[in-house]
Amino acid sequence: MSDNWGRWGADDERGAANLLTPDVVLAAVSSVRQGRVLPLAQPISGSTSGPGAGRVPHLAGRPLPQHFMSVDGGDYAAGARRLQGEIGLSDDALVLSPHGTTTHIDALAHMWRGDALYNGHPADRVRSYGATRCGIDKLGPLVARGVLLDVAAHRGIPHLPADTLVDAALLAEVAGAAEVEPRAGDVVLVRTGWPQVFRGEPARYQDAQPGLDGSGARWLVERDVVAIGSDNAAVGALDPGCTFHGTLDEDVHLLTLWRAGVTLIEMMGLEELSAAVAEGGRADFLFVAAPLPIEGGTASPLTPLAVL
Amino acid sequence: MSDNWGRWGADDERGAANLLTPDVVLAAVSSVRQGRVLPLAQPISGSTSGPGAGRVPHLAGRPLPQHFMSVDGGDYAAGARRLQGEIGLSDDALVLSPHGTTTHIDALAHMWRGDALYNGHPADRVRSYGATRCGIDKLGPLVARGVLLDVAAHRGIPHLPADTLVDAALLAEVAGAAEVEPRAGDVVLVRTGWPQVFRGEPARYQDAQPGLDGSGARWLVERDVVAIGSDNAAVGALDPGCTFHGTLDEDVHLLTLWRAGVTLIEMMGLEELSAAVAEGGRADFLFVAAPLPIEGGTASPLTPLAVL
Amino acid sequence: MSDNWGRWGADDERGAANLLTPDVVLAAVSSVRQGRVLPLAQPISGSTSGPGAGRVPHLAGRPLPQHFMSVDGGDYAAGARRLQGEIGLSDDALVLSPHGTTTHIDALAHMWRGDALYNGHPADRVRSYGATRCGIDKLGPLVARGVLLDVAAHRGIPHLPADTLVDAALLAEVAGAAEVEPRAGDVVLVRTGWPQVFRGEPARYQDAQPGLDGSGARWLVERDVVAIGSDNAAVGALDPGCTFHGTLDEDVHLLTLWRAGVTLIEMMGLEELSAAVAEGGRADFLFVAAPLPIEGGTASPLTPLAVL
Amino acid sequence: MSDNWGRWGADDERGAANLLTPDVVLAAVSSVRQGRVLPLAQPISGSTSGPGAGRVPHLAGRPLPQHFMSVDGGDYAAGARRLQGEIGLSDDALVLSPHGTTTHIDALAHMWRGDALYNGHPADRVRSYGATRCGIDKLGPLVARGVLLDVAAHRGIPHLPADTLVDAALLAEVAGAAEVEPRAGDVVLVRTGWPQVFRGEPARYQDAQPGLDGSGARWLVERDVVAIGSDNAAVGALDPGCTFHGTLDEDVHLLTLWRAGVTLIEMMGLEELSAAVAEGGRADFLFVAAPLPIEGGTASPLTPLAVL
Repeated sequence: MSDNWGRWGADDERGAANLLTPDVVLAAVSSVRQGRVLPLAQPISGSTSGPGAGRVPHLAGRPLPQHFMSVDGGDYAAGARRLQGEIGLSDDALVLSPHGTTTHIDALAHMWRGDALYNGHPADRVRSYGATRCGIDKLGPLVARGVLLDVAAHRGIPHLPADTLVDAALLAEVAGAAEVEPRAGDVVLVRTGWPQVFRGEPARYQDAQPGLDGSGARWLVERDVVAIGSDNAAVGALDPGCTFHGTLDEDVHLLTLWRAGVTLIEMMGLEELSAAVAEGGRADFLFVAAPLPIEGGTASPLTPLAVL
Repeated sequence: MSDNWGRWGADDERGAANLLTPDVVLAAVSSVRQGRVLPLAQPISGSTSGPGAGRVPHLAGRPLPQHFMSVDGGDYAAGARRLQGEIGLSDDALVLSPHGTTTHIDALAHMWRGDALYNGHPADRVRSYGATRCGIDKLGPLVARGVLLDVAAHRGIPHLPADTLVDAALLAEVAGAAEVEPRAGDVVLVRTGWPQVFRGEPARYQDAQPGLDGSGARWLVERDVVAIGSDNAAVGALDPGCTFHGTLDEDVHLLTLWRAGVTLIEMMGLEELSAAVAEGGRADFLFVAAPLPIEGGTASPLTPLAVL
Repeated sequence: MSDNWGRWGADDERGAANLLTPDVVLAAVSSVRQGRVLPLAQPISGSTSGPGAGRVPHLAGRPLPQHFMSVDGGDYAAGARRLQGEIGLSDDALVLSPHGTTTHIDALAHMWRGDALYNGHPADRVRSYGATRCGIDKLGPLVARGVLLDVAAHRGIPHLPADTLVDAALLAEVAGAAEVEPRAGDVVLVRTGWPQVFRGEPARYQDAQPGLDGSGARWLVERDVVAIGSDNAAVGALDPGCTFHGTLDEDVHLLTLWRAGVTLIEMMGLEELSAAVAEGGRADFLFVAAPLPIEGGTASPLTPLAVL
Repeated sequence: MSDNWGRWGADDERGAANLLTPDVVLAAVSSVRQGRVLPLAQPISGSTSGPGAGRVPHLAGRPLPQHFMSVDGGDYAAGARRLQGEIGLSDDALVLSPHGTTTHIDALAHMWRGDALYNGHPADRVRSYGATRCGIDKLGPLVARGVLLDVAAHRGIPHLPADTLVDAALLAEVAGAAEVEPRAGDVVLVRTGWPQVFRGEPARYQDAQPGLDGSGARWLVERDVVAIGSDNAAVGALDPGCTFHGTLDEDVHLLTLWRAGVTLIEMMGLEELSAAVAEGGRADFLFVAAPLPIEGGTASPLTPLAVL
């Protein structure tokens, strides 16, 4: 089904995460074969007085992460007093706006149409002190079978062209070639390779991007996936000017987050997983995502894991 | 052994995380029996204009999390222009200093004695733009067997008294009663119940705290654990005035992070796990921690997971 | 008059600041006699790993200033590379919520009753991206005659008791004794001495506070003052529990900011000015306030000046 | 003289601000003729979900201001509970790194050569918790005669070309034409018009910039000015690649801040002042700068004022 409103009760704020019953978790765990753990996040580089922050793929106009040390080894080198005369400590702070800047998972409250969030929760409850409905604190962890649909590798190219729409037919073709059928309770990761464009051509990265179209989103939602991840900025394709591709009825965020309660994981780092899957021959694995329980958060920064 | 400098090579920045070989991971995965997933984090409550932030257990004098919405449902209720005329979006920012305020995992660069970090890395490389040695970005994810040593439950009390030192003998006693022997590659979680003090008596929470003493830390390090977690603020006990208990030679942070490369997970939420273990009869499970790869970070906020 | 809506036009967003015509400014400048300049701000102390931030008077539950160095002398002591081999630089960042934490000036958009801001501007235009009406960027600088009404000194005590209501009669009495009559275009500073309570008894400071009542606010508004400053937290008195004193119709913020467009300057440091006025014998001077033009800001941190 | 170390005592941390004796202040005040007040700051635009922040001239790679509302009119439109049932409040937070992003005044601790700050203070005292020597909290307010040297207007062009070095001869020529001789205790403002480049060509703005060279800095320092302001990013000229122009011995920051204790005010908004001076015929006025007393700050955001 493509619309999950009411499916898990009128009060539900977790959406497709409800599919992760103990049986599904046990089946997901049984996907582990090698005991190899791969993090799927891009670095969070927030140095203000160094070149770091600008080096990580991000969308234009978004505030980059900022990372500050409130005490560090330099202070002791300069003579700062130590604890008990000998101990050195480092301490820090992070300022982070996840959307468009770092690997993150969207709350169901992140996007909606009209006056209601997913499952009819009033959008009026998303206020300056946070989303009291469908915030990221309501989602809970995702321990699921992960499936990599490596579209770029399937095509034998480092990254898809900017105007590639990953539609239902293409997803089916990639899944077929990989001999892995997305099923209820899966987290499906769609690799475009697009982050590789950033290093040499940041402005090109920040413009149009390859990604799912509405048919691709529907295809996954119909298979009852729990979440969709990608290495592009919005899971869905972006048109030139960095705008969502598609009409309102075909918008990927609306079809997934809003209508189906299927969350999105964006700006993932999938290169190492791509190589491991190519090498190991299996595109399914144990997937783990543990969002920070930010009360009323619209997203959480995330290090998703693949356990092969 | 209690000192791991050089054990994984002169350049090593991961410490005991190196123990997580594929075999150890596979054995850890085999601990899953029920398919039940429990998050082990306390909420991150950062509302500035509400009572939220002060409600979550934290140490005195630490900057509380701040969470800001840069666009929300209130804006649309007030007439803000929507995307394509119909779409609402919410977006946010987080300001976070993890130590003392939220569930987090320490980088090996967080504490040291003299001029060298863990494994002899120069403390001079921990500077205002971050720890270029032994930062949290170097640790990598922890997928391990988790073992709960529920000291408070073992004693049959909601929380340990403030002056309880969890020493080697007590750990051995609790492990024996639970019929679970910490082994190489485990993550051991020590439950004190101390967060329950916060609600009614925040000032008492912020003073002395029960926790490991040096002998307890040594006992765990000798068993080659990968990490030690607790629901108190510093894993080690805190003396009145919220200072580290013990001499320099018996300091828990120094014995673990610094000498042994064993990282610490602090301010965990262990109540639900305690109940589940009490009910299910097994104190071991699959444990997952996926730190954010904050370049040069001294810690990462974290939602640790137990998969029972 | 006590209600200035429409007085300076239907579009006006500056309120009583419109009274500062060139003639009024010239008269204010003529108050300078000694050439002595006094800053009237309390320090902004934002050190996260030191005791600083908590030492400055502030209200409970407010996020304290945070100040971070992104490069500093410690980094060079630790070996950081210098510009051209020899130059050292320091750079920093400030995180600040002015209300309740530091000397600041309120925007007219800071408080209102019902659905309209000062002068009938729709409160709906105060959104997550800032107050597009009556924000602090609309106020402009205040160069005016300043008048100190030093109520505590008038009574011969270091600070007023917590339950002192500074009413119209008391203001008139203090002004009369000081031989200075507030007139149109003045900025009047009301000294309570309350910050002196903070050092020894922060919890007492954060509870009830002496300050204006509604009659005092009306008395000043009727004299067409441009702004009212005080060394307490809210200009108006605070009842036990740190709540605004008075009914809605007598609320000091509503009578001044909202009805009269008279802005408020809070948490000032008036001790040095008090001593200088006591010594010099004149309670009027040139007053200067230059708010930061924060687009849509609800306040600006401020160093008000008295030029005696 | 060009070197002021020791001139105001071995402990001095205020530098040329010591020149602002009462007599100098009184003379400055006498420059007021029209009673016209002009703010000299560019806006601080920190909206994260709007286009604002990027519209204000700033250097590349610097973190832009961020401004967050923690409660606003939108929340009430969405049904948030009001104080006493009727009152609406707005509250906010600002995250700011002044250098390179907004109008600000440099602390004497901002730049140095070797191991000593201005006046020989050890650079080792500039640490993660702030500059305990020569921080912006030590500077105090500047109430001085202001002198506009409008180089662009003198040349009859909207802005100087990027490679213009404003040297001693050019300053003397502009001062002569304006019939105003910089004297001890003045604050001299050098207008380049460069911000006008930003709107259409931000990348050009962020590259080379016109500004003082070493001879120009020496010429002003020799006249015992208190501070030098400009509408460019660094007062001194910037070479292509946005690097300081000149050798170490001719570096403008070192000649002023470091050797002479003469502070710098950067990224000013001087267009309105330029027009007013052109119209009014006098290039001198009362100048006021009131830095925020940020303990250990390397700079303060600032709204400088000209009172004509």
